[in-house]
Amino acid sequence: MHLSEITHPNQLHGLPISQLEKIARQIRDKHLQTIAASGGHLGPGLGVVELTLGLYQTLDLDHDKVVWDVGHQAYPHKLITGRYKDFHTLRQQHGVAGYLKRSESRFDHFGAGHASTSISAALGMAIARDLKGENYKVAAIIGDGALTGGMALEAINHAGHLTKTNLVVVLNDNEMSISPNVGAIPRYLNKMRLSPPMQFLTDNLEEQFKQLPFSEAVTPELSRFKEGVKRLAVSKVGAVFEELGFTYMGPVDGHNLSELISAFKEAHNHGGPVLVHVATVKGKGYEIAEKDQVGYHAQSPFDIETGQKIPSNKPKPPGYSKVFTETLITLAEKDPTIIGITAAMAQGTRLDLLQAKLPKQYIDVGIAEQHAVTLAAGLACEGMKPVPVIYSTFLQRGYDQIVHDICIQKLPVFLALDRAGIVGVDGPTHQGMYDIAYLRCIPNLVLMAPKDEAELQQMVVTGVNYDGPIAVRYPRGNGYGVPLMESGWETLPIGKAEVLRQGEDVMLVGYGSMVYPAMQTAEILSEHGVEATVINARFAKPLDTELMLPMAKRIGRVATLEDGCLMGGFGSALAEEFFDAGITPALLRLGVPDILVDHASPDQSKAELGLMPAQMAEQILKKFELGKSERELAEQI
Amino acid sequence: MHLSEITHPNQLHGLPISQLEKIARQIRDKHLQTIAASGGHLGPGLGVVELTLGLYQTLDLDHDKVVWDVGHQAYPHKLITGRYKDFHTLRQQHGVAGYLKRSESRFDHFGAGHASTSISAALGMAIARDLKGENYKVAAIIGDGALTGGMALEAINHAGHLTKTNLVVVLNDNEMSISPNVGAIPRYLNKMRLSPPMQFLTDNLEEQFKQLPFSEAVTPELSRFKEGVKRLAVSKVGAVFEELGFTYMGPVDGHNLSELISAFKEAHNHGGPVLVHVATVKGKGYEIAEKDQVGYHAQSPFDIETGQKIPSNKPKPPGYSKVFTETLITLAEKDPTIIGITAAMAQGTRLDLLQAKLPKQYIDVGIAEQHAVTLAAGLACEGMKPVPVIYSTFLQRGYDQIVHDICIQKLPVFLALDRAGIVGVDGPTHQGMYDIAYLRCIPNLVLMAPKDEAELQQMVVTGVNYDGPIAVRYPRGNGYGVPLMESGWETLPIGKAEVLRQGEDVMLVGYGSMVYPAMQTAEILSEHGVEATVINARFAKPLDTELMLPMAKRIGRVATLEDGCLMGGFGSALAEEFFDAGITPALLRLGVPDILVDHASPDQSKAELGLMPAQMAEQILKKFELGKSERELAEQI
Repeated sequence: MHLSEITHPNQLHGLPISQLEKIARQIRDKHLQTIAASGGHLGPGLGVVELTLGLYQTLDLDHDKVVWDVGHQAYPHKLITGRYKDFHTLRQQHGVAGYLKRSESRFDHFGAGHASTSISAALGMAIARDLKGENYKVAAIIGDGALTGGMALEAINHAGHLTKTNLVVVLNDNEMSISPNVGAIPRYLNKMRLSPPMQFLTDNLEEQFKQLPFSEAVTPELSRFKEGVKRLAVSKVGAVFEELGFTYMGPVDGHNLSELISAFKEAHNHGGPVLVHVATVKGKGYEIAEKDQVGYHAQSPFDIETGQKIPSNKPKPPGYSKVFTETLITLAEKDPTIIGITAAMAQGTRLDLLQAKLPKQYIDVGIAEQHAVTLAAGLACEGMKPVPVIYSTFLQRGYDQIVHDICIQKLPVFLALDRAGIVGVDGPTHQGMYDIAYLRCIPNLVLMAPKDEAELQQMVVTGVNYDGPIAVRYPRGNGYGVPLMESGWETLPIGKAEVLRQGEDVMLVGYGSMVYPAMQTAEILSEHGVEATVINARFAKPLDTELMLPMAKRIGRVATLEDGCLMGGFGSALAEEFFDAGITPALLRLGVPDILVDHASPDQSKAELGLMPAQMAEQILKKFELGKSERELAEQI
Repeated sequence: MHLSEITHPNQLHGLPISQLEKIARQIRDKHLQTIAASGGHLGPGLGVVELTLGLYQTLDLDHDKVVWDVGHQAYPHKLITGRYKDFHTLRQQHGVAGYLKRSESRFDHFGAGHASTSISAALGMAIARDLKGENYKVAAIIGDGALTGGMALEAINHAGHLTKTNLVVVLNDNEMSISPNVGAIPRYLNKMRLSPPMQFLTDNLEEQFKQLPFSEAVTPELSRFKEGVKRLAVSKVGAVFEELGFTYMGPVDGHNLSELISAFKEAHNHGGPVLVHVATVKGKGYEIAEKDQVGYHAQSPFDIETGQKIPSNKPKPPGYSKVFTETLITLAEKDPTIIGITAAMAQGTRLDLLQAKLPKQYIDVGIAEQHAVTLAAGLACEGMKPVPVIYSTFLQRGYDQIVHDICIQKLPVFLALDRAGIVGVDGPTHQGMYDIAYLRCIPNLVLMAPKDEAELQQMVVTGVNYDGPIAVRYPRGNGYGVPLMESGWETLPIGKAEVLRQGEDVMLVGYGSMVYPAMQTAEILSEHGVEATVINARFAKPLDTELMLPMAKRIGRVATLEDGCLMGGFGSALAEEFFDAGITPALLRLGVPDILVDHASPDQSKAELGLMPAQMAEQILKKFELGKSERELAEQI
């Protein structure tokens, strides 16, 4: 059987190991070729090929449930659940999604784009099963990085308490999240990886105990010291999980199919909450990725032979993340109170540059956004200037902490929201759509967004110098290639906008990444004889009402342009101000309507949302009935 | 020295134990008398009197830092840090706050209203200290309930990794959060409470070991089995914390001052992250509270002799929480798929009634809002109808999970937001101000709020029957005493508002708890000759634009009334719709402006915010220049 013939994982049931190993190789080949050609997550999938095949030997996915933590480790799952043929469309518009998605396949039992959710979801499924009196199996697969996320630990606390609820948690331990893991839990797991293979902590206790050198002397005391002895007998592997109510099994060699299959079988049969600790190698089977696990977590297209990126046709301007961090470094070199904080995204945010240059002013807290935010608040209490740099969508995890620990206490924390707005191929779970809305309602918080990478530099200066809670949002990807700041490292006036262009027919107010498109839109409008004023708002809160209200009143037609949700977003803020001031120009709010934006290139998404300059110009002309000839207007009437 | 003379905790330094015990009694008396008279949190404070006095013997609060998890256990702290004299004003407007507050006292080093933040904040302070090259002490005090919150575990993972960062975490283990704790961690702590008192796990290893019956045989193997033996030697008390990098000390008798003082001294001297496990009794010293720890966690005014509530003058209508849960029970009795979920707030949400009646359809996950939301999503995947009932402000903890696990996946989860809006005496950390704004921007989510307790019943029916994500918000406190539903248990039409009153001068749109005030406002307006239409919006999303837009266009004057933040809130939603439709009536948005609302009675808060009916009528008359005589208008011109 060839991988291409497999559309249901049950087809693999009962195949001999040698045949499964062939399928494993085919999965790796297909995976590698696809990612090399189109880019995507490489290492995570390569690491779980045998884990997936082994686990699915013990599951019937027509009935049993499997929950993968963060979908990007589930490409092997996709390849054996009916998506082989379309796999070349991975992360392309209308193609196979980069994460799991309930609407994409009946085998995707739970979607996930953010880490640490799988145990909660799987436990919910297991409780539902028991309430219905059914008896299918439920398994969650979680990475060691994701295990440091608070909600995974909340779920373990709950599941470990439900001793009669059958649930298998597979810990895919590759010693990495995206970067090497930070924290006591990963260190603990590491220690366990070095232990003798495969053991049931609570089983065969006496037998194992007898193998110890002093067993004869101790055996009579067994009943009395049973609990303590257990730890001794097995070198306390898994003690933490055992203490928390789980049966611990492991470590299992994550690339040995027969070992995996027998471990999973035993785990299902054991009953109650069971944790199977599987040691895998990220990037397994592709030597270049095995050697550079951080670099090959996710990749742009590359040459399989050399592992080298396929260079793009033209040199690209620097990315926003890089400009952000380099600017922060420039400031941090002079100010030792500046501390950059990442939640396991050192590469993505480019805080790795800060780590390399000023390691004392860099903190990686692991996948732990809640902790990251409150840690920052604690640092700020003691005179530090903490700068948590977190993707817009991941910051949703620290929402309550932003409200309470930073804003209610008015602490000088500078929140940097990377990947704000339309992010492209990662799809709905990664779109940074909601931050303007969810942050705008919090008192004491200043919100800003730069029009380009040079203005981002100014905003870094502004954020660091501001004595209170302040946030900047900036997009994924590259800047415009504008000259970076050489001088002018002063703070922007808080709440002051900038007029970029003047015209009396319509007023365009762009926020952040939509300012340049606003300028382009104005150019197109001008070709239709419509002259636009263009405002770079710079601040969503406070808004520059002093500038904008009289102007809106005079011009009478306003369009807002934003790269985020329209509900409660930037345009909504201006709408509030207009009504409050009793000024009611015609207002067109351009942005992301109340829908989920699927994976596609950013430009494809924008085109679908009508956010390309030509489309926006058209909507503006139509809404305000501008730029039409007398005849057209006459015809319309 | 009498407690009343103490304004700085250093005044207690070096006092003999007998003297400290006297102060402890005075603290208990004052605490008890104050809460008996005015209501508030009783049990938590009584339990930590000795813990506070003992810890402060080892701290100099002019330099050292102390972070209390959830401020309500910090009343003894307040009584010895300058707030004795004003303590009778506890939780009253302009009086002493019910939680810690940086702006209230220089000894309140970190404010906290939600659980589980203390280790993160304290770790931030400790890291800052080390970066500054200073050497003050930092201590966090966290309850065993709060320890199950994910962010506390994230912080432990981080702190346990920083082996050189001195930090003392005091685990105040009273076996309770508000209700008895749920989960594997509390069970684990419980087991430890039964262990022999006061031990350093990593110290005196050999000595302790020798006391074991088979020590002679084993001692030669010590070096080889050191790790395993450690667990054996001390019956593995604290193994989980030790494995996670903390030095574990305990259990310590939380009511024995000399034991506490010596434990804290040793903890500070030990270095690195240390966890001191202190066993306390909630309500200690007040027998009635010791016996009913759930009932006396927080109290309305009561008679100290009998512990009985002082009955209020008139019988009160049933509370919203009770009506919610009783209605849910009625439905759940017929539908076994309905599952109520609480995050350690069974009493507050009245889900305790569901627990008593239908225990299988009730889940308490502990202080773990993130997990609660995703667990609900997992249950919904398998055909259950989960109903997480969580306070508006606590649900901020599960924000990302609402976006991803419920709304992106369109799962039929019914979110119930208790304590939405102005909550009164608990102050800024508990005000349910932001939920309309932070939920409104999420696609696929329906938002509703009832005008009274009977409509809440209808919304419970609606929420349970709706096949998708849906949320209801309802206020703290009692309903209006309207007759509860006897029939009419059908679903409300989604997105349909209700016209309660007709008038052509102004249109009032109330949402939820502001609908009755809108009616009262209309009555006052009528006295001024101004006739109002009053709409009960019922839904903030989707809005009933079909009804409201033509009406707003016709009447030309609209006021929205909401019990939440104006920025991005309900009125903001209507403002968006008006502009989108090109209708621009005069609009007055009444609600909570962009400020923090301090503790006070709900009516005091509303009066301060101008949200009492007479005040709102006045603002409406002024904004729309209505209700004035010809002469007044003439004079104005």
